[in-house]
Formats: sequence, structure tokens, C-alpha cells
Amino acid sequence: MTNTINRQIVLAARPVGAPKESDFDMVEGAMPTPGDGEMLCRTLYLSLDPYMRGRISDAKSYAAPVQIGSVMVGGTVSEVVESNIGGFSPGDIAVTGNGWQEYALSDGKGVRKLDPGIAPISTGVGVLGMPGFTAYVGLLDHGRPKPGETVVVSAASGAVGAVVGQIAKLQGCRAVGIAGAPEKCAYVTEELGFDACVSHRDDNLAEALAAACPNGIDVYFENVGGAVFEAVLPLLNPFSRIPVCGLISQYNATELPPGPNMLPMLMRQVLTRKVAIRGFIQSDHLERMPDFINEMPGWIKDGRIKYREDIVDGLENAVPAFQGLLEGRNFGKLLVRVAPDPTA
Amino acid sequence: MTNTINRQIVLAARPVGAPKESDFDMVEGAMPTPGDGEMLCRTLYLSLDPYMRGRISDAKSYAAPVQIGSVMVGGTVSEVVESNIGGFSPGDIAVTGNGWQEYALSDGKGVRKLDPGIAPISTGVGVLGMPGFTAYVGLLDHGRPKPGETVVVSAASGAVGAVVGQIAKLQGCRAVGIAGAPEKCAYVTEELGFDACVSHRDDNLAEALAAACPNGIDVYFENVGGAVFEAVLPLLNPFSRIPVCGLISQYNATELPPGPNMLPMLMRQVLTRKVAIRGFIQSDHLERMPDFINEMPGWIKDGRIKYREDIVDGLENAVPAFQGLLEGRNFGKLLVRVAPDPTA
Repeated sequence: MTNTINRQIVLAARPVGAPKESDFDMVEGAMPTPGDGEMLCRTLYLSLDPYMRGRISDAKSYAAPVQIGSVMVGGTVSEVVESNIGGFSPGDIAVTGNGWQEYALSDGKGVRKLDPGIAPISTGVGVLGMPGFTAYVGLLDHGRPKPGETVVVSAASGAVGAVVGQIAKLQGCRAVGIAGAPEKCAYVTEELGFDACVSHRDDNLAEALAAACPNGIDVYFENVGGAVFEAVLPLLNPFSRIPVCGLISQYNATELPPGPNMLPMLMRQVLTRKVAIRGFIQSDHLERMPDFINEMPGWIKDGRIKYREDIVDGLENAVPAFQGLLEGRNFGKLLVRVAPDPTA
Repeated sequence: MTNTINRQIVLAARPVGAPKESDFDMVEGAMPTPGDGEMLCRTLYLSLDPYMRGRISDAKSYAAPVQIGSVMVGGTVSEVVESNIGGFSPGDIAVTGNGWQEYALSDGKGVRKLDPGIAPISTGVGVLGMPGFTAYVGLLDHGRPKPGETVVVSAASGAVGAVVGQIAKLQGCRAVGIAGAPEKCAYVTEELGFDACVSHRDDNLAEALAAACPNGIDVYFENVGGAVFEAVLPLLNPFSRIPVCGLISQYNATELPPGPNMLPMLMRQVLTRKVAIRGFIQSDHLERMPDFINEMPGWIKDGRIKYREDIVDGLENAVPAFQGLLEGRNFGKLLVRVAPDPTA
């Protein structure tokens, strides 16, 4: 251990609207020393995810917010540097929750070791980690797709959406994506094998989506909210299901949008088409994690599930990368490479 | 059979906004004659229900609309006058779907005979019929109330809402009603035994509802929509359930209300509190009817479920009664007594 400094990004202020650089601070903490039953982990990859916007707001949500001055939370892939825990040895690679910092201690609870032989270790916080599991449990358990049904997913080129559509195809469904940039739409159909993808930048989104869903929508996997959701409403089939995973278009909003008020329209559709809407978080479904861990690596190995990563180098670039994520500037699962990947 | 005339109310025009008298016509049809496998039924009670507003609109819904010139649909309690069907004899009392007319033929399908010894036969289209069953299956199967939870129901003094709150009490829940007139609110707490009832006419509905629900809302049984639903949103607990049964405040609307757009607010609550919303119609759950028929008469006999009827005399008064229903002017289950009740 030659390095004695641990760079960390802490929350400096609660963002109002889009997070600013000044809402975060880079600080230099002391390198922690593991005690009995602890290990020191070095962050290799930091996962940047939309949910983090909620964690730095003090609005009531499913988790307590990050406090001002505290290290930003986040999933990480780490290398064990020193270990006083049985079962963990220096050089082990594991999925940890280090947050936005170079080093952290862990007691090993909730830590999952990774086998670099199965897939690149960065996937431990991507397609083989939280975002992949979110897609898996959200689509299968809440969306309950049946062969021949139409599954629509927004943020379709993103870490969750890309997996949702590909699992929908594996279930024998028509998969339709909604994405932004033309190259993302092309990727979704040409690389990921979705049947269609429409752009939310299209002035005629509603018409384009209707054309892509000639038999209506049976499952809408919601990652976006706002105008995209409104375009989905008229197309909902009887007994359609809407797993609500995220609402990224709304996270930076500081006030409700102007009218008309679309809430009565939604409720009318819910009533007359007997729609089921369900907000969910993957951590409420950890009993399904073993099934995911059994199934997903095979799908990836067989090329049935593809993934794309958008890797930014250096912890000092985490904040601009996160800002870009909230504006859809990333293309694929967004990661920060905090230290060189020893397995690459 | 001395009478040879069958008075009928037919749809004359599709209502725009609140239905007008001129949207309906009273016509005199010929008395029908039952053929083989048919019976002639005389309407005793006609049920008037909010769903009928949807059936006279041509907006896409769960049932085809009533055509212009056709007899208005509706549940009825009838007396068999002549029968060419085994198992049905003159004098039998049965729940039928005669619609808004004095006589109709039936082939006996879907017809349920009533025992006048169990309860007044009018309840066959009320607490012991479709509205009661709607409350039963919607609350128990979609609301899934657990002892100690708070169940809120709108239109709480109505045919469905009154039963919802009382079943909630039987399940060990706190039952909170939302109603309009002060006498309805008093009835809901004093007669029906709800723990609290707030008025949607209260300028401080949101505050009053919050005060009535100190532990938040676990089940909201939706009959009303609009501003009432918006008052419920902030109070939703994690994993709360919203069975959507009706939206009576919205049925006469001809356009969406002005902003702000509350849809993003709903979706935020759905996401962060993992809310389940489900539109339903009792006819999709007929497999539960035997359970209802087993349980409900006992609850009524024991005085554990009370009910109130608002009976209007004469088919010629059906239209104004229906207009009043859509404005909340009825007090209890609304019925038209089309002919004298031979069992009363």
C-alpha cells in the first residue's frame, strides 16, 4: 500500500433541477484500514444510474437521501486489496457498494464475487448486475409477457431497456423500443433485434408508436415518464401491464408541467381497459436473484442478450458523466473506470 | 295478459356532457311473446348505475355502446309472467338484464332466481347483486386489505362504496369514506360504522383526508376520479393498492381539465411508493360469485353489512333519476320501481 489518499466525491448541495458541478465536491480522505471482519476494496468501475438523482433529493422516496457532505452512493466493481474476512482474498473481484470513491471498507455483507471467466467484470454492475436484474424481474414478474404480445420499453438503448426488449424477444413477444438519437434507434433494432424502435424526438411520436404497435401494447415497461408515457396511453390493450421502473424525464423537474391535466385520461384507460400499473424496485425481489444468476450468463454467452457499455475514465469525470446520463447523452450502460481493470 | 303495450326508454342521441332529457325517448313497443325456450319477464325494479354513462358514449370501452334507437341496457329484478323454460315458472322472481323497459323476453341464460325470504328482492341488483359483488371482489381480490391497514373509498354512501367500507371493517381495517353532502358523511360513519368520512366539497379536502388517515392510505378504492383522486395521491403508503372501479366525476367531461398536469405526480408516487393500480370490472371475476353468494347474505342477516336504497317510482322517471345519479343527488342505491313489488 503505497497510496495513502482516497479520493471521494461528496454531495455538496441538494440540486435544484439539473445537478450542477457545484452540487458535488471532490475531497481527499485518508485511506481506511480494515479491522477484524473487514476488507479494503479498491473501486475499479463505478456504475452511474438514473436512480441516483432521487437519492440526492430530499423528496420522500424509497430510500433515505444522501446527506450533504456524505460520499455519493453507488454500485461498484472492486478488487479486494486487504482482507480480514474468510472467503475474500486479495485480488478477488466483487460487486460492492463503494459509492463514488477510490477505496472503501466492506464487511462482506451483500458482496457478490465475480468470475472474470464468465464475462467482463464491468458487467457485474450492468447486464449481469442490478440493471440486468431490474429488467429481468420487472418484465417477467410484473410485465408477465405472453408469446405474441407486444412489449414496449422506453430508454430502450439504456442499461435496463436493452435487456427488457431482448428478454421480451426470448419470450416470443414483439419488442418495440422508444429511444432518442437515431443511432440509438438503429442500434436497438439492428444490434439488439427489437422489431421496431421509435424516437421520442419525433414530432409525431404518437403516430409513429401506433404504427410500430399495430396490435396495441400489452406490456409497457416504463423508464421515462412524461410525454413518452402520454404517447403510450391510447395504445394500451385490455389487461395490459405497466411495470414502472423509472421516470428519468421527470427527475430534474422543479414543478409540474402545464395542462391539460392528463391524469383523468390515464385513469379512464386504466378503468376501461383494465390496466395494471405497478411501481417496483429490484431490491424488493431479491428472492429472484438466483434465477437471474442462473439464466442470464447463458443468454449472454449464447449471444441472445447483447449489451453495450459507455465507459468514462477517471473518478474526476463522474459528475459530468452523471449530468449527461440525466440528459440521455450516454449510449449504453454508463460506467466510470476508476482504476485500471486488472482482468482486462 | 290484458296489457299489450311495453313501454321502453331508448337512446335518442349520444349525450355530449351531462345527458339531457332529449337524449332519450319513451316509446311504446308491442308486448313480446315468448317462443320455445323463452320466458316473458315483467320488470319490477330497474337498477340505475354510473357505468351506464359509459355505455351511451361511443368512446372505446369494455362493452359496445348502446345504439341510437335501442333500449337502454340495465340490470333488473323481474317477475316471470310466462315461461317456456324448465326451471322457471310464472311468479318466480329473478335478476335479469331487461334494460329500461316494462317487459322483456329471456332465454334464462345468466338469470339468477331470488329467494324473497333472504332479503327484499330489490337487493338482487344492489347489495346482493352487481354493486355488492363489485365491492366484494374489487376490495378483497384487488385491494387485498390486511388487518390494521387503512382503506379509503370514494362515493362512500353509494351502492358500491358503502359495501367496500363495511367489508374493510370486517377485515379489521380502518375504513375512511369520501362523500359529498353532510348527511351522507354522517350516514357513512354513524350508520355504516366507517371510522371517518370527509366531504369532497370541503375546501380543505386534502388536509381533512390526511387528518382522517394518520397512518396513510394502504388501499384506495376508486369510484370517483378527478380532484378526489388527486387528494389521495400524497397519502399513499408503500405497496398501497388502488382498485379502479369507477370515475363518476369524469364521465360527463367533454375535455381534459386545465393544468397543471398531475400525471407525473401520480407516476412519481407509483414509482417511489411501489403502488399497484388496477382497473377492474366485476364481470371478469364471475368465478368469485359463489363465494359472494355464500358470504354476503349472512353478513346482511347479522347486520354486519347495512344498505340503503333510493327508490324512484315509475319508468317515466328513470331519466331524471339517472341525471341525478351522475351529479350525486341520490342517497343510497338508486332504483326505479317499474311495477309494484308483489313480495313487499
